[in-house]
Amino acid sequence: MEEDVLDARRVEAIQDAVEAQDAARLDELLDPLHAADIADLLEQIGPSDRRDLLRLWPNGIDGEILSELDEAIREEVIDQMSPQVLAEAVRELDTDDVVDILEDLEEEDHDRILGALAAVDRVAVERAMSYPEYSAGRLMQREVVIAPEHWNVGQAIDYMRSNESLPDQFYHVILVDPRMKPKGYVTLGRVLSSRRDVLLREIEEDSFRTIEATEPEADVAYIFNQYHLISCPVVDENDRLVGVITIDDAMNVLDEEHEEDMLRMAGVGDEASLSDTVWEAAKGRAVWLFVNLLTAILASSVISAFADTIGQMVALAVLMPIVASMGGNAGTQTMTVAVRALATRDLTAQNAFRVIRREAAVGALNGMVFGLLMALIAGWWFGLPMLALVIGVAMVLTLVAAAAGGILIPMGLQRFGIDPALASGPFVTTVTDVVGFFAFLGLASWILL
Amino acid sequence: MEEDVLDARRVEAIQDAVEAQDAARLDELLDPLHAADIADLLEQIGPSDRRDLLRLWPNGIDGEILSELDEAIREEVIDQMSPQVLAEAVRELDTDDVVDILEDLEEEDHDRILGALAAVDRVAVERAMSYPEYSAGRLMQREVVIAPEHWNVGQAIDYMRSNESLPDQFYHVILVDPRMKPKGYVTLGRVLSSRRDVLLREIEEDSFRTIEATEPEADVAYIFNQYHLISCPVVDENDRLVGVITIDDAMNVLDEEHEEDMLRMAGVGDEASLSDTVWEAAKGRAVWLFVNLLTAILASSVISAFADTIGQMVALAVLMPIVASMGGNAGTQTMTVAVRALATRDLTAQNAFRVIRREAAVGALNGMVFGLLMALIAGWWFGLPMLALVIGVAMVLTLVAAAAGGILIPMGLQRFGIDPALASGPFVTTVTDVVGFFAFLGLASWILL
Repeated sequence: MEEDVLDARRVEAIQDAVEAQDAARLDELLDPLHAADIADLLEQIGPSDRRDLLRLWPNGIDGEILSELDEAIREEVIDQMSPQVLAEAVRELDTDDVVDILEDLEEEDHDRILGALAAVDRVAVERAMSYPEYSAGRLMQREVVIAPEHWNVGQAIDYMRSNESLPDQFYHVILVDPRMKPKGYVTLGRVLSSRRDVLLREIEEDSFRTIEATEPEADVAYIFNQYHLISCPVVDENDRLVGVITIDDAMNVLDEEHEEDMLRMAGVGDEASLSDTVWEAAKGRAVWLFVNLLTAILASSVISAFADTIGQMVALAVLMPIVASMGGNAGTQTMTVAVRALATRDLTAQNAFRVIRREAAVGALNGMVFGLLMALIAGWWFGLPMLALVIGVAMVLTLVAAAAGGILIPMGLQRFGIDPALASGPFVTTVTDVVGFFAFLGLASWILL
Repeated sequence: MEEDVLDARRVEAIQDAVEAQDAARLDELLDPLHAADIADLLEQIGPSDRRDLLRLWPNGIDGEILSELDEAIREEVIDQMSPQVLAEAVRELDTDDVVDILEDLEEEDHDRILGALAAVDRVAVERAMSYPEYSAGRLMQREVVIAPEHWNVGQAIDYMRSNESLPDQFYHVILVDPRMKPKGYVTLGRVLSSRRDVLLREIEEDSFRTIEATEPEADVAYIFNQYHLISCPVVDENDRLVGVITIDDAMNVLDEEHEEDMLRMAGVGDEASLSDTVWEAAKGRAVWLFVNLLTAILASSVISAFADTIGQMVALAVLMPIVASMGGNAGTQTMTVAVRALATRDLTAQNAFRVIRREAAVGALNGMVFGLLMALIAGWWFGLPMLALVIGVAMVLTLVAAAAGGILIPMGLQRFGIDPALASGPFVTTVTDVVGFFAFLGLASWILL
């Protein structure tokens, strides 16, 4: 590991330098850091420290740092940058990174960024922005390294040596036909280890695939992960090469997709980052809390229907949350496995029936185990054998319902084109709560009273 | 996109071929598929179909397919492979992939794999296995491309052209000193675009870092993601080069870490895959259901303390699950944000206080909103103004407690070296349930009766 890392000591030293208004020392501390670490630092310190730091370091923010910043902070940082510094920062970026920055900015700030670009880059960025949001076209870089199919290794090397504007990072030479349709690619390692007279066609990779510019970025991440790609050519609707996506972008999307799934399943919404304001965070979460309130009221109305039963035996009120809680947890377990398997495309029409059967069996098995256990506990606690029987049976029914709901609801939502990570939770909880309360209180009023 | 994809039609055709015992047709259908898709196919069909398919395709499984298979299935597939086919499959793999396969196999099967390897590879694999599980040493490939610091581009190209055993994939030439300490690296793109007489040292990358072989693989994934690395040299305790990790391995780890966090937070445990048996899945989930049972009983004992109060006003039993449910959800929201931020290292000692304050404010804000809303609903439902007041106040208290528990519990667990994704859930639920029931029923018995 490099020694120039962002540890607690360095953060403290940086804050001291800012407080002492010591610009030289600040520069000395920040300069060796990686852009990603500087971005993290800016995210972690408070808003007023951030303002002070930027004022003391007016020329420090470059394009790379801007790319790394969280969107909630980025706008604030851009507002504080002088037009010249902003222009310089934007101009050093690849077009895909400029697009990434533009996407998160308010429409009225777009001109400040676009105006800073050279004409040719501006056209490239505007063309990329014409692709749908979250599509491969937005993700790709337009800078590509191509060669005609009939070239040999020597010709490719000579071309690269004479080309002034190669992309920062590239991993393949893409072979194209005269109409710019990609026909295959050669890894740079193969180019370097082959003699100059070897034809590129002879050393191209066995497996070759392209991505359409309109394909959603989630599919791009899946393809990279599934087929272990390093880079992949992007084509338009006529199969002509328009750009290339590299694995670092795909890894980024994969990371964001995971984060999104995780936060959506917990009902935190899409916008959540630690830099969101109290107001934004509260608003985002309130939506799901409101949905949860409705399902909780629905469950309560089931209890309400058995109010007389509870009035005659308060032990029911004591025990009923246990049934609902176990059902909720079992449902969440199954639902999480289902949502994850749908996201990784491991759960398909092909094995759906077998997976449903397995989940039902798991639900029944754990239902019996915990039904029995809870019956013993309730029997010992309240000394009523029939109450023990009621809670045991209710537990089995609830856990089977939880398994069924946990698998069928995400699958059903997916079929209707709704993101299962976003919407499964409320439905599954409704099922487990309603079944749990109804089974327990219904059996109780039938058997006990 | 390639046309040779694993869609429902192809799966059906494959199953038809297996049923008809048509080996030629089966081969024709499977041959153009990518190894990752064949592995998916084997995972998605049932065990008996799988056995039939493998019997009809005895020489089909190669090293790549073996690497891609889910561990639950892999052992079964290996058992059905003839020793020769297995040996051939294993021999074509890079050492890091062999290590990956060995890790998941029973100890007694190791010899079958190791015996198939050439002596030099066996030594390499055994050395890798001597590193701790889930460490960089297990993840790296030992095949590296190095050059002395003083070489120029031409020397490097000549060396690569004459070297017979270059790795399958490599992205950098690593510059080493005479004692094999890595000093920097050059991307292949830079090598290819520079004249033969340019010194490698002049075109090396600005930012260069190494990873220690004992570093945990989760840190490796973090470093690749944070610094956008494509490959990274691995060094031993004397800073000597021992291997290299490439981004596809890091992406894989990142994907697995995410999956682990997601499943752990839902209490599904580590082993879950759709290929697990009913028994394995039920056992894994039962652990967490048992923990949940204990916390639910604890919450019920709070209710039990107020049994008299409930006996006098059954409306309390109807409403109390709403308070607990809202608390549980708000706690899960905060906890998920906290667990995710800890995993991405966005939540540090530096900003902990500010994040805690923000979460408390979010809890208080949403507590007041939903407290007021629920007070109105309860007032309208039961027509008791004091009951409305009680549930409103209880809701505020519970949502603030949920926020506090949701952020402090994961942070505390992390400090004690316990994975917050694994253990936060039960603790947070205990807090929200106990506070929810206690606040609501306590206030009710104090104010209403």
